[in-house]
Amino acid sequence: MSEQIQEIKGWLYEAGEKIKASFREELKVDQKSNRTDLVTNMDRDIQKFLIENIQSTYPKARILAEESGYNTLDTMEGTVFVIDPIDGTLNFVLEKENFCIMLAVYEEGQSKLGFIYNVMQEELYWGGREFGVYCNEKKLTKPENKLLSEGLIGMNAHMYLHNQYEAQKIGEVSMGVRMSGCAGIELIAILKGTRIGYLSNLSPWDYAAGCAMLDAFDFPYSGLTGKPLHFNGREHFVAGTPKMVEEVSKILQFP
Amino acid sequence: MSEQIQEIKGWLYEAGEKIKASFREELKVDQKSNRTDLVTNMDRDIQKFLIENIQSTYPKARILAEESGYNTLDTMEGTVFVIDPIDGTLNFVLEKENFCIMLAVYEEGQSKLGFIYNVMQEELYWGGREFGVYCNEKKLTKPENKLLSEGLIGMNAHMYLHNQYEAQKIGEVSMGVRMSGCAGIELIAILKGTRIGYLSNLSPWDYAAGCAMLDAFDFPYSGLTGKPLHFNGREHFVAGTPKMVEEVSKILQFP
Repeated sequence: MSEQIQEIKGWLYEAGEKIKASFREELKVDQKSNRTDLVTNMDRDIQKFLIENIQSTYPKARILAEESGYNTLDTMEGTVFVIDPIDGTLNFVLEKENFCIMLAVYEEGQSKLGFIYNVMQEELYWGGREFGVYCNEKKLTKPENKLLSEGLIGMNAHMYLHNQYEAQKIGEVSMGVRMSGCAGIELIAILKGTRIGYLSNLSPWDYAAGCAMLDAFDFPYSGLTGKPLHFNGREHFVAGTPKMVEEVSKILQFP
Repeated sequence: MSEQIQEIKGWLYEAGEKIKASFREELKVDQKSNRTDLVTNMDRDIQKFLIENIQSTYPKARILAEESGYNTLDTMEGTVFVIDPIDGTLNFVLEKENFCIMLAVYEEGQSKLGFIYNVMQEELYWGGREFGVYCNEKKLTKPENKLLSEGLIGMNAHMYLHNQYEAQKIGEVSMGVRMSGCAGIELIAILKGTRIGYLSNLSPWDYAAGCAMLDAFDFPYSGLTGKPLHFNGREHFVAGTPKMVEEVSKILQFP
């Protein structure tokens, strides 16, 4: 098992080096659904690199990944690898920082391992319910179970602007709203205890790795109607401390 | 002159070490105007430390600083030091990162030097119109003059939520809105070229150091009615690339 962790870490470090090296060359940027939804040659290259490694080591595993060809899956049975080659592509293109590589391993629909690699900070967060959560070699302590009113909250700009799911009220109750443009950075902040929660609209590759690590702390996450995440397309999402998610569920009158 | 820069850098590094050391002790946190407007013993201690150094080296200089006793000044004549001991106090308290120490030197109302020290990243940005801008020992190149539609914009959450000064429209035209809760981080991002601009509601100690470095690139900043900043109390603020600020001025119909 520890061998699997070392192996995946090795892939991620190598992927990170490829990304850093790419800053010396011109990036090829294409639009997907709209002018701010971008994909680059590096998103495709990193996904290809990770998939090749997974397929040669785990030929029976299923793969769910952001870029084309792998972005739907009809079952979470067996071993599933969930990949976001570059989470925060807009930040990657415009800032050359504040992006992550994310990878998760699920077994029969249950989280086993999550990895979020903040490449430019050289911080690899990894772990799972059997292991706890680490930043590089340092084990994290479980964050305090803070109230919504006691912490900062990560927020999706569109949800906040249009007050979807009472996002503005939830922001007002919190100590303050933060927007980083990168789900990995927001989920890391919950794991570190620097933010109490995160409200967004995410695809499975945006949340799988973070949720696998939240499971290590028994910290909750769900869709914004209170239903479990379905790992099938984009959905509104909340994660945070148990107290924060309970307060959000009361504000939104989850069943 | 280079002696003055070395001297101020020395104060800032020492102040940074004091802040890092404070994480081993309990922080004393008080509210100022409301529950999210905080001041800590460290804001006061760092301000006192910087003021003592300034007063012993530059006994004739005036001082404008965030915490009590120094937060108004009736003239910008002569040499003025502008200090924010901890910019992003809420982040400092809740995240223990994403805050800065800021210091600026003005002569007869003109910017001379600015310093923004991101303590936890160990990045000290410094410079001025006679020097250019540096991150630690590395000189920055002047950022590209991008349009509002080509970059990410830093935004004050309250202004965005209440659509003050067309903040929502300005956000929509941009590539995306980011909120860090720290003016220093937002102004650094403009200097690095990773964001095209910043809209906020700031006091002089929030913008003085950043503006001194923006002057090195001839990048514009002003109040949101188009008038020059008055260095006297809180005011709505824009800074960014020349093209971005021009577009904002058209949207807001500055004179």
